[in-house]
Amino acid sequence: MKKEYVIGVDLGGTKILTALSDLEGNILKRSRVLVGDVKDKDTVVTKIKETIEQVIEETEVDLEQVAGIGLGCPGPLDIEEGLIHHTPNLNLDDVNIKDELSDLNTPIFLENDANAAALGEQWFGSGKGAENMIYITVSTGIGGGVIINGDIYHGTSDGAGEIGHMTLDPNSVVKCGCGNFGCWEALASGTALSRLGQEALKAEEDTMIDDLVDEISEVDGAVVAKAAAKEDEVALELMNTIAERLGTGLASLINIFNPSRIVFGGGVSNSWSLLEDKVWETIEARAMDSLAEKVEIIPAELGSDVGVVGAIAAALAHIKK
Amino acid sequence: MKKEYVIGVDLGGTKILTALSDLEGNILKRSRVLVGDVKDKDTVVTKIKETIEQVIEETEVDLEQVAGIGLGCPGPLDIEEGLIHHTPNLNLDDVNIKDELSDLNTPIFLENDANAAALGEQWFGSGKGAENMIYITVSTGIGGGVIINGDIYHGTSDGAGEIGHMTLDPNSVVKCGCGNFGCWEALASGTALSRLGQEALKAEEDTMIDDLVDEISEVDGAVVAKAAAKEDEVALELMNTIAERLGTGLASLINIFNPSRIVFGGGVSNSWSLLEDKVWETIEARAMDSLAEKVEIIPAELGSDVGVVGAIAAALAHIKK
Repeated sequence: MKKEYVIGVDLGGTKILTALSDLEGNILKRSRVLVGDVKDKDTVVTKIKETIEQVIEETEVDLEQVAGIGLGCPGPLDIEEGLIHHTPNLNLDDVNIKDELSDLNTPIFLENDANAAALGEQWFGSGKGAENMIYITVSTGIGGGVIINGDIYHGTSDGAGEIGHMTLDPNSVVKCGCGNFGCWEALASGTALSRLGQEALKAEEDTMIDDLVDEISEVDGAVVAKAAAKEDEVALELMNTIAERLGTGLASLINIFNPSRIVFGGGVSNSWSLLEDKVWETIEARAMDSLAEKVEIIPAELGSDVGVVGAIAAALAHIKK
Repeated sequence: MKKEYVIGVDLGGTKILTALSDLEGNILKRSRVLVGDVKDKDTVVTKIKETIEQVIEETEVDLEQVAGIGLGCPGPLDIEEGLIHHTPNLNLDDVNIKDELSDLNTPIFLENDANAAALGEQWFGSGKGAENMIYITVSTGIGGGVIINGDIYHGTSDGAGEIGHMTLDPNSVVKCGCGNFGCWEALASGTALSRLGQEALKAEEDTMIDDLVDEISEVDGAVVAKAAAKEDEVALELMNTIAERLGTGLASLINIFNPSRIVFGGGVSNSWSLLEDKVWETIEARAMDSLAEKVEIIPAELGSDVGVVGAIAAALAHIKK
């Protein structure tokens, strides 16, 4: 039977998003289930299979027509083996997902979720045509995927691309989730913006942010961005601080990778117009001119679809290679 | 005629080192000329040809038996085109070296000098067998070459690998030669160590460094290292500072690249035994555990031979591909 389809599965901490697409990435059917409170291997595997069966049944496609299933999953992983070493939000520890899904008789292509997102943007979003591209997603944390000579760069043990854990400021006392202090993620993510906003309120600064929340703890990155969009000066200053920190990290990546494109996704990228000038000002000050002039920074296109589209791209990347 | 040899040319600011080797990298003959004071295109090209002719004549090899000539050169370059955009120490601006050497009728493989050094260590030195390797050379500056999946990663415009120009400390007021402030190179190179040593003398600290020089300006990195090797406490503290800064940058590179090996060359690497503990302590604090445990750091093997051996490796990398 002709292999005319692929399936992408975006395995998240709260939900599983699955989609069936043709070999051009056109999505024919989607399926979505909540993981629920019982998070163990059997539950997660059963729910993955349910979503796959659903897209198959509802399109009347035969599983034999599916060339492969891309599975985007939080790391650390062993991609070749299909091993999920650990996922904090799903209680999967040393689960071989290829083995667990072997009864589907379809090739399974495991990929780190940030790498899958990078592939998604490269195949179907803002990364189209870029051979050397850095995908950066800035939301609660900072994640990324590095595409080199057209392919995801996985590194020695499938752990490359932890760009959010570059040390941005070695003297910083802000502790990162990874254990290090002063990581890019700790200082330039949406969480960092939220922290700056909360600190501004605690310092009783005169800002509209105050009017947008009932409690200081409600100040998240989006609230600060909202106040900045309304030209609140304190909020604009905080956005500038984040933009400078983003630009500093990006300048280092530009000097290291000489990419042609940086695709900027995640919640904070929705405020790109407020960040752009300061990000570029910082890059121009800190990156080598000959490299800075070769790169463009483009907001991501796929939005909340990036996970499942990325999983589809991960499958296509294997099949079409 | 059978192609049994390659030639490597290491084009430096003061001298040109050339060597003829067999296809296993065994050097049969070397040649060396000083560039001299007249540094212009014609002089440099003539001297390159002289060194090549010399190794050919003295070995009675026919140039037709030479499969290719690797040329290691300071950047920025266009490698495919053979274009040297600019070399500060040689007054070469937009010189097409392939055209200039076309009368040799032998393929010319241009390579950035730091990348060539990385290839040299990978083929014949401490990098043997490493598919994902970072070569770092710490002397006056910090340079490097990144080997990914077995090959040098060149980036979009042959400018990748400027690892010395990562921003190490965004609040630093130390200006780097590149124009940025707080680059890794500005804070962790031999020049930085020299500066720390000179500052210690100016602050009249009680240190053996004082006895090793007549003038404060004579304090270079090697002098500080010498005092540290004799267990001078001030000098040991300065070495620790440099080691911590080296470790911070290396931790970021480990998080980004997940390499299996880091090869550490340049003058400062001669003091590896004095730096090693603090470098690793810093990496363990700042890099992700799963990535730190996959990497080894090994001092470079080739010493002052790295340039010409690297140029030979650059030729072999093309020929044997």
